[in-house]
Amino acid sequence: MSSGHSNSESAGRFVRESISEYSEFALPTDANMLGNVLGGKVMHLVDLAAALAAVRHARCSVVTASVDQMSFLHPVHIGQLIVLRSSVNRVFRTSMEIGVRVEVENLFTGHIQHASSAYLTFVAIDKSGKRIPIPPVIPETEDEKRRFLEAEQRRAYRLAMREKALQKID
Amino acid sequence: MSSGHSNSESAGRFVRESISEYSEFALPTDANMLGNVLGGKVMHLVDLAAALAAVRHARCSVVTASVDQMSFLHPVHIGQLIVLRSSVNRVFRTSMEIGVRVEVENLFTGHIQHASSAYLTFVAIDKSGKRIPIPPVIPETEDEKRRFLEAEQRRAYRLAMREKALQKID
Amino acid sequence: MSSGHSNSESAGRFVRESISEYSEFALPTDANMLGNVLGGKVMHLVDLAAALAAVRHARCSVVTASVDQMSFLHPVHIGQLIVLRSSVNRVFRTSMEIGVRVEVENLFTGHIQHASSAYLTFVAIDKSGKRIPIPPVIPETEDEKRRFLEAEQRRAYRLAMREKALQKID
Amino acid sequence: MSSGHSNSESAGRFVRESISEYSEFALPTDANMLGNVLGGKVMHLVDLAAALAAVRHARCSVVTASVDQMSFLHPVHIGQLIVLRSSVNRVFRTSMEIGVRVEVENLFTGHIQHASSAYLTFVAIDKSGKRIPIPPVIPETEDEKRRFLEAEQRRAYRLAMREKALQKID
Amino acid sequence: MSSGHSNSESAGRFVRESISEYSEFALPTDANMLGNVLGGKVMHLVDLAAALAAVRHARCSVVTASVDQMSFLHPVHIGQLIVLRSSVNRVFRTSMEIGVRVEVENLFTGHIQHASSAYLTFVAIDKSGKRIPIPPVIPETEDEKRRFLEAEQRRAYRLAMREKALQKID
Amino acid sequence: MSSGHSNSESAGRFVRESISEYSEFALPTDANMLGNVLGGKVMHLVDLAAALAAVRHARCSVVTASVDQMSFLHPVHIGQLIVLRSSVNRVFRTSMEIGVRVEVENLFTGHIQHASSAYLTFVAIDKSGKRIPIPPVIPETEDEKRRFLEAEQRRAYRLAMREKALQKID
Repeated sequence: MSSGHSNSESAGRFVRESISEYSEFALPTDANMLGNVLGGKVMHLVDLAAALAAVRHARCSVVTASVDQMSFLHPVHIGQLIVLRSSVNRVFRTSMEIGVRVEVENLFTGHIQHASSAYLTFVAIDKSGKRIPIPPVIPETEDEKRRFLEAEQRRAYRLAMREKALQKID
Repeated sequence: MSSGHSNSESAGRFVRESISEYSEFALPTDANMLGNVLGGKVMHLVDLAAALAAVRHARCSVVTASVDQMSFLHPVHIGQLIVLRSSVNRVFRTSMEIGVRVEVENLFTGHIQHASSAYLTFVAIDKSGKRIPIPPVIPETEDEKRRFLEAEQRRAYRLAMREKALQKID
Repeated sequence: MSSGHSNSESAGRFVRESISEYSEFALPTDANMLGNVLGGKVMHLVDLAAALAAVRHARCSVVTASVDQMSFLHPVHIGQLIVLRSSVNRVFRTSMEIGVRVEVENLFTGHIQHASSAYLTFVAIDKSGKRIPIPPVIPETEDEKRRFLEAEQRRAYRLAMREKALQKID
Repeated sequence: MSSGHSNSESAGRFVRESISEYSEFALPTDANMLGNVLGGKVMHLVDLAAALAAVRHARCSVVTASVDQMSFLHPVHIGQLIVLRSSVNRVFRTSMEIGVRVEVENLFTGHIQHASSAYLTFVAIDKSGKRIPIPPVIPETEDEKRRFLEAEQRRAYRLAMREKALQKID
Repeated sequence: MSSGHSNSESAGRFVRESISEYSEFALPTDANMLGNVLGGKVMHLVDLAAALAAVRHARCSVVTASVDQMSFLHPVHIGQLIVLRSSVNRVFRTSMEIGVRVEVENLFTGHIQHASSAYLTFVAIDKSGKRIPIPPVIPETEDEKRRFLEAEQRRAYRLAMREKALQKID
Repeated sequence: MSSGHSNSESAGRFVRESISEYSEFALPTDANMLGNVLGGKVMHLVDLAAALAAVRHARCSVVTASVDQMSFLHPVHIGQLIVLRSSVNRVFRTSMEIGVRVEVENLFTGHIQHASSAYLTFVAIDKSGKRIPIPPVIPETEDEKRRFLEAEQRRAYRLAMREKALQKID
């Protein structure tokens, strides 16, 4: 195992090494007057879950650089469990794309719904806040390979949007 | 004023009637070990600020339906003030697009930076959670008119993304 | 699947059906002046993680009845990830024993330590707060069967302690 | 009084010098959907109240080492006052046992119930996290002397449990 | 005791029956960048501690009507214990004056400082929010009698200030 | 503009340069059992809003020294928006008076009520906690000039109250 590990150090880390799961009960304090959990609370958790996979992969501090378009497919209600699964889709030298899937579980019935999906990018930074290189990620399964390829396309759109945001008058 | 108000009731409300500002101090509890405020915290505030303009316009409960791609242009540090300005860009019968501009103010120097911009959609709901119509919004200034037009284009992209998310295997 | 499910309804549920995992970042707000996470914070999470498995098994509201002796084997520091795994060990008609294992992960090194273990009992209650029967739990693996047996012994000690607490002068 | 105080410095401190009381309102944010305060919230407060007496006695930072079996005798409801009283029962060189009594007060009727009792051990640490000696505690009243004696017995059980936890496979 | 109690019901309650103590650790989350606890946090606790005595006396829900001038005499630092003592000074049919004394304890040295004092008025309300009469308070000690008399003078100033606030243009 | 700015540096800053607005949704977690927001929560926000104007004016850390008598004119309910406007009324070498106006907005009707007004004093401190001089404030409008004059009278009363508090036996 030690040789396998040192190999992973030099050539990168496998996707499965940083796959993460994060859960949280939807509490009254996170909801509006009708008992619906605020979209912003879900976004907050999405960022946390993504950061978890990002730090596990990069083994250093990370900062959120962007989040792609997110749709909220099903309302989340107080008392339900929010379950978030995250993994590193691809590394671009000093940034990486993380995918997050959000599910909502009704604990009384066991019913689970897909509530949202998100792609976020993070950059790795050292203690002075300077960007540092991230080890490559190695996809193994078919799904991991597909996400690896798609991440490249999403990146082009994202960089164009960032350019636009920097010039923004709005 | 009463006649102007009843007119606004029937024909819609002006953008300026629901323009909102929301501020929050960046506290240690919102930051990572390096003092950078978590992206998820900023997203949370963006959703709150957008909901504020949405409720002021629709005068009923609202639920976040989506958030467009967001870039984080400048890190936010503990002790800074996060200022969010939001307005209704356009109404689409039971949904509306809200624009949010995020600025960060260093209170010791007065220096202000554009940290992020976001577009969110909200739906208006009644007490049983059913979607209800939203009064139209009437743009007056050049900027408001431009945002009104651009909102239509963003909507097409958003609906395509939502369709994709509903079929999602990821 | 439907027949298997109805079978599980009548005869009880398997341990694996309610095994739960709950994680939380150790934040500055949870720590003392030296950066050590408060024992009470860990206890709070242990109760949450146990409740998660308990509700998933009983499919109704539950209330903590007791927690057995807990030792804190390793300090938890700010920035680390607290990971809690819980499962139902045994059901005693209207109460059940849940086991929780607490691990602490240093996200920068991947190093994981066993921080604590706990056994809690919960009772299931209906909307009026009255205790209701809980479906039996069916152990399958060797570990699950061992825990099932040990739970009986722990119960005797617990009931004696409860009796003592009810008469307590301290 | 000055001579009495310097005497207490050298020979130890009296139990009464660190007896503590801590109260908290049970808020909606601490309760489940039925309005029952989570057991974990009570445990959190028990640890805080115990730490208060521990620091007042040791006059340095302390870390929770263990908590003995706790039974929750009466449910705590939102709006009630949780009152915790804690005192140092005995010191064992670098660790000490603290006893905590939890009562619940219905503020509208003045009715008070004994909700739980707990024994916790704390170790005293210096700024580098190293364990340091704790001044002895001097029991004066009959109750204090009884608790002092009983603490020795509880310690034996506790050390056995800790040994078991360190070897734990669960 | 039963006769004494029924007497207290008809003629009022003694000051000592509702004297309250409330404590809270000053946490990093309550402080500014220099480690000073925010004045607003102290005010928040003063209101809580006062409400505690008010509810214990009136045995019903209460709402803050006013707070008199408060000076912050000593800074409160993270890690210190804030101790608040409150009692009912006088009842004016549907309102009452509560006095609160705030002390700050350095737990490492045992040093205690008087940090602030406050007088608040509360009104008692029923479930529909309507003001209801409050049982009189009976002062027994010299201090209680002095506070009872002084409360009358403070009330005149307060009513004048309230009148001014209602007409306020600022 | 640079010369205008350096002028403002030497001669002081205009009131309008630090006028601040702070808003917060009234959440269930801030309210009592009847849905009324606690007075202490409003006081907390008043202190935050005042600190915002104080820091914007002084460009350094500030500490609350006192708060004048406050009346709560209208109850605040969950779901409403609390809007606080603050400005520097006058500077007294190392302290300054800040005025805060609290309004409550019913977002569903647009109805706004004046809930409270407050005057607070802050001192400016350097990193070692020592008091430092604050640049003078220059009133321009009639209202600003009136508040500037009235601040002097409030100060006399305040200093007398502080003196009394320092000698306090209560």
